[in-house]
Amino acid sequence: MKQKIIDPWGSGLLEDYKKIVKDFGLELFDPKLLPNPNRIMRRGVVFAGRDLKVIADAIKSKKKYYVLSGIMPSSEKIHFGTKMVVENIRYFQEHGAETYILVADLEAASTRGVTLEESRGRALDFHIPAYVALGLDAKKTTFYFQSENKEVMNNAYEFAKKITLNEFEAIYGNADPGKIMAAMTQVADILYPQFKERMPGIIPVGIDQDPHIRLTRDIIRRFKDRKYFLPSALYNKYTPSLDGDIKMSKSKPESCIELPEDIKFVKRKIKNALSGGRDTLEEHRKLGAIVERDMVFELMKQHLVEDDKELNKIYNEYKSGKITSGELKEIACNKMEDFMDNFVKGIEQARKHISKLNFVKFK
Amino acid sequence: MKQKIIDPWGSGLLEDYKKIVKDFGLELFDPKLLPNPNRIMRRGVVFAGRDLKVIADAIKSKKKYYVLSGIMPSSEKIHFGTKMVVENIRYFQEHGAETYILVADLEAASTRGVTLEESRGRALDFHIPAYVALGLDAKKTTFYFQSENKEVMNNAYEFAKKITLNEFEAIYGNADPGKIMAAMTQVADILYPQFKERMPGIIPVGIDQDPHIRLTRDIIRRFKDRKYFLPSALYNKYTPSLDGDIKMSKSKPESCIELPEDIKFVKRKIKNALSGGRDTLEEHRKLGAIVERDMVFELMKQHLVEDDKELNKIYNEYKSGKITSGELKEIACNKMEDFMDNFVKGIEQARKHISKLNFVKFK
Repeated sequence: MKQKIIDPWGSGLLEDYKKIVKDFGLELFDPKLLPNPNRIMRRGVVFAGRDLKVIADAIKSKKKYYVLSGIMPSSEKIHFGTKMVVENIRYFQEHGAETYILVADLEAASTRGVTLEESRGRALDFHIPAYVALGLDAKKTTFYFQSENKEVMNNAYEFAKKITLNEFEAIYGNADPGKIMAAMTQVADILYPQFKERMPGIIPVGIDQDPHIRLTRDIIRRFKDRKYFLPSALYNKYTPSLDGDIKMSKSKPESCIELPEDIKFVKRKIKNALSGGRDTLEEHRKLGAIVERDMVFELMKQHLVEDDKELNKIYNEYKSGKITSGELKEIACNKMEDFMDNFVKGIEQARKHISKLNFVKFK
Repeated sequence: MKQKIIDPWGSGLLEDYKKIVKDFGLELFDPKLLPNPNRIMRRGVVFAGRDLKVIADAIKSKKKYYVLSGIMPSSEKIHFGTKMVVENIRYFQEHGAETYILVADLEAASTRGVTLEESRGRALDFHIPAYVALGLDAKKTTFYFQSENKEVMNNAYEFAKKITLNEFEAIYGNADPGKIMAAMTQVADILYPQFKERMPGIIPVGIDQDPHIRLTRDIIRRFKDRKYFLPSALYNKYTPSLDGDIKMSKSKPESCIELPEDIKFVKRKIKNALSGGRDTLEEHRKLGAIVERDMVFELMKQHLVEDDKELNKIYNEYKSGKITSGELKEIACNKMEDFMDNFVKGIEQARKHISKLNFVKFK
């Protein structure tokens, strides 16, 4: 029972993504629904959604819609889950969506005790540049800080009236004052682009963030007269831990790669990762790798190999035993080094242009 | 056990004020502590406090301190409890306190579903003029709307991190998202005058508002490095229901007088009020009234007779049976009519000057 409840602040284990889809009433994601699906959409990493047809229609008919996401500035690192969210934001931005990125400084204060000043510093110095380095077009993006957005805060209070503690606990598994205030504010954030003009919106998230989406949809249904569009959502799977657990987590640093991280350490971690290779070379050549259990291949599939043909080739050669697990790790290390180099350079580049961001000016 | 928990949004019965003082660790109020105590201070209606000596010292040594209270704009009426709070605000304002009045529009939204626009309209049109009619010096008062005060809202989020749901429920008896958001905002309101400069402050409240005071003091103790003064508080008893219940409540309209209310109805209610008169005139003359159970005398003591000598005379004549319960009610009706006339005229007068209020300008 406990496992059914996804806590966006914790890191509960998800044994079976299909079960999640069923339990939470999600739609399975079909990459044919969207034009030119991106890498993670094509490869089943994006695996589910809510009301995706509304967004597909908006793209097709060039109607107004928005994509929105938040930055949680609790440290000067991101993880692969965030990278995937940014890639999906980028996808919708390139397909006509008005793009909103908020800095969740109030959430950081109320759930992690981070001061607003710390949040602001980290967002400007690291997170926004990192998003730009991952392909966000900052010129076409509207940014805001929760703490400056009175409209969001004021609406959060109105929304709070529409939900009971029991309902909150049913969605989140538990509740405390900080989480409640953070969640109500997220609801208002998710709807913010609709305050001026009602339109469909898509929120790309990790599956652990689904409670916010459900809460928002539940609350909107209780404000029928306000005629908000129910937000659509797009879910990606976790990047698995290098030891094979379903989700990479800082609690196991040797199995977790942070972005950015010193490539020396990253290479060591990759070399120690759970492999699909056989016990002996002879056996490996004969039987081929068990690709499904290989965390390095998974990392390449999710993050390091853009081209499908190239990925297929690696898959086939590894599956057939033509390349060894050591060789696969070598390829991954080289690709990771390129990625990390470009990422760090991209951040430095983006930092130089930070003053030109479109922050919402509040009265 | 349930009775021990005072719910500021409900109307729990308080069987015994002395028990409250003991259970919540309050100080009994001694009118000799403060210079020139006002009517309700002199008469035991103000019955308890927290850290009152700090305030008495500030008055005595003319040090900076503040008095703060909030307007809950849920309707265009106030009740006698609010009148007493305003009288206490006025007392401290006249004794050197910086005076802050906030409009609790976010609380009204999150606990009662009142829109911010409705709150604003009612506060400007009715509540602030009513406070002025009851003696508040608006020129010397700083006003603000919660929904405009980002500093208050942002601090509310930081404070939320310092309290668990269990602690919240222990203080309030229950919790829901709206109440939690409202309470955290109240904590930030109570401290707002200290954001720029730390100083003692006094919050005059009805005893049912004590949970907010306790929550604030608990949270401040967890932010020791911020060096806030613990807020002092002053508590008044309820104005009893005309049928003898401990608190006047709109749920029994025939025993409740609202401010303002058509004097026709008010007189009828007074005439039907629980009396301390005896069953027959003969018995009354012989035994005198049971003044302690007379709700009309209580009303005169709390609200209608300013002069102690006059009140004493009425008390003695009623106690001795010289005046009847009908005559007492007649006196009360006349005094109530004067009060209500002056109150309504005072509101009209104050409305004309509403544009000159000192509202905090927020960037």
